[in-house]
Amino acid sequence: MPRKQRSLDLTQVSEWHEGKVRRKEDYLAGEEPLEIRVGEHPLSVTMRTPGDDLDLAAGFLLTEGLIQRREQIVALDHDLGDPENPGANRGNVVRVDLDPASMPDFEKMRRHFFAASSCGICGKASIDSVRARSMQPPNPHFRLDPEVLVKLPDTLRASQAVFGRTGGLHAAALFDAKGELLVLREDIGRHNAVDKVIGWALRNGRMPLANAVLLVSGRGGFEIIQKAIVAGLPVVASVSAPSSLAVQLAREMSLTLVGFLRGRRFVVYAGEERLAKSD
Amino acid sequence: MPRKQRSLDLTQVSEWHEGKVRRKEDYLAGEEPLEIRVGEHPLSVTMRTPGDDLDLAAGFLLTEGLIQRREQIVALDHDLGDPENPGANRGNVVRVDLDPASMPDFEKMRRHFFAASSCGICGKASIDSVRARSMQPPNPHFRLDPEVLVKLPDTLRASQAVFGRTGGLHAAALFDAKGELLVLREDIGRHNAVDKVIGWALRNGRMPLANAVLLVSGRGGFEIIQKAIVAGLPVVASVSAPSSLAVQLAREMSLTLVGFLRGRRFVVYAGEERLAKSD
Repeated sequence: MPRKQRSLDLTQVSEWHEGKVRRKEDYLAGEEPLEIRVGEHPLSVTMRTPGDDLDLAAGFLLTEGLIQRREQIVALDHDLGDPENPGANRGNVVRVDLDPASMPDFEKMRRHFFAASSCGICGKASIDSVRARSMQPPNPHFRLDPEVLVKLPDTLRASQAVFGRTGGLHAAALFDAKGELLVLREDIGRHNAVDKVIGWALRNGRMPLANAVLLVSGRGGFEIIQKAIVAGLPVVASVSAPSSLAVQLAREMSLTLVGFLRGRRFVVYAGEERLAKSD
Repeated sequence: MPRKQRSLDLTQVSEWHEGKVRRKEDYLAGEEPLEIRVGEHPLSVTMRTPGDDLDLAAGFLLTEGLIQRREQIVALDHDLGDPENPGANRGNVVRVDLDPASMPDFEKMRRHFFAASSCGICGKASIDSVRARSMQPPNPHFRLDPEVLVKLPDTLRASQAVFGRTGGLHAAALFDAKGELLVLREDIGRHNAVDKVIGWALRNGRMPLANAVLLVSGRGGFEIIQKAIVAGLPVVASVSAPSSLAVQLAREMSLTLVGFLRGRRFVVYAGEERLAKSD
């Protein structure tokens, strides 16, 4: 058995307020490295909040373009490593086995992707290399009532109640066109939260997400948009601001991108036509 | 000349408010990929807000453990690429030349670091591998008056005025023990903002930062703490929450870690002894 991973830790801290110090207990968002292996090949290491690791791995493989369909995954589980020393991996390794026809050319990847750095881009150097993946524009027929859209953040926050107390997590959630919450995941890494909800959808036979909305708690950066398009999502909404490259990609790919979704107000950066008022 | 990179873009958007839609112009935080090359070797690609790219590259090399001193950098500049097609790199490539004795073993790195994913960890799989870098605990003699500490967020916000309007940027700033702002950088990537201020210090002969405080606008994750320790910083403060692994690393390395620095209140997670009240 892997060591029990914790998404929340309790610790002793000191709170300073107006010159007075008191000891108290505080919750911390869990953070540990997760290594994803494809067969025997280490593919990536990401700092994540433990929990839903298999969804995270499946979502990562999909949104980073290594697989396109659930059926390409033959096996997916935690790798407990050395049977003589069970638990050495401490639940921090997931192994994915793909059908042989889907195995990536690791030698080619090794040559091209030396070492990527920030935030899951894995060597993709530009918007052009994303385009080269032949992504499809998402469902042009999907419509979302603005009155439904403005209610989503409240639903998200209400469902976040447990983790909300740490203040240190990003949230990602999928909703249907009626505003029903399909799945919510939280993680110290924004991209991980998105990969977890998309991986959940993939493993539950809900791909492509042609009639769903992705809501993220943080800002809508380029890589979130890229992951959403790969998953077939027609609408991405954020409570904060998107970046210039996120807006550019959303416009080129005809994705609906909403920012500053707060109260009964929001800003539409791309794909306004999907936000039709229902009669 | 590289194409002029923009840290802010202006674009047309639609604002929806209580059922009424109006067109307006909005600022977006700039986001473009930056490739860092060491000599001819591509080292990393990061999505960043254009600006202070040389500081970013220098800081990244230091905080990721590739160099320890400014003198190891022989040359540092944008790489404009093909002279027949100037501007093809669009200012998105920085080339660093190191003295021969400092050149990393790229073949070894290639074997070990296949492809890293989230957020600058570059294949470091665990807190143990960070420890293996033989980092030193920061200056035990540094003291910071809590009354100085609680004023830092206001100074940060006042200096952020220009970029603040996009709402989409993370900020990192260095202060001295009197609360004087040394440098402030903003970036769509939290780690980039930190690498930019540390790179600024490195290039300006201010290393190690044994008498400075790092303030970050977002949460204090593991990698921020790790970068701070490599730079010799004794205190890291954040307006939001740290993660479990960040607290663990700060405690092991005797770094002072403050979170939820808001108004006249903060929480101390590690290294409380440096927060001495001055007489």
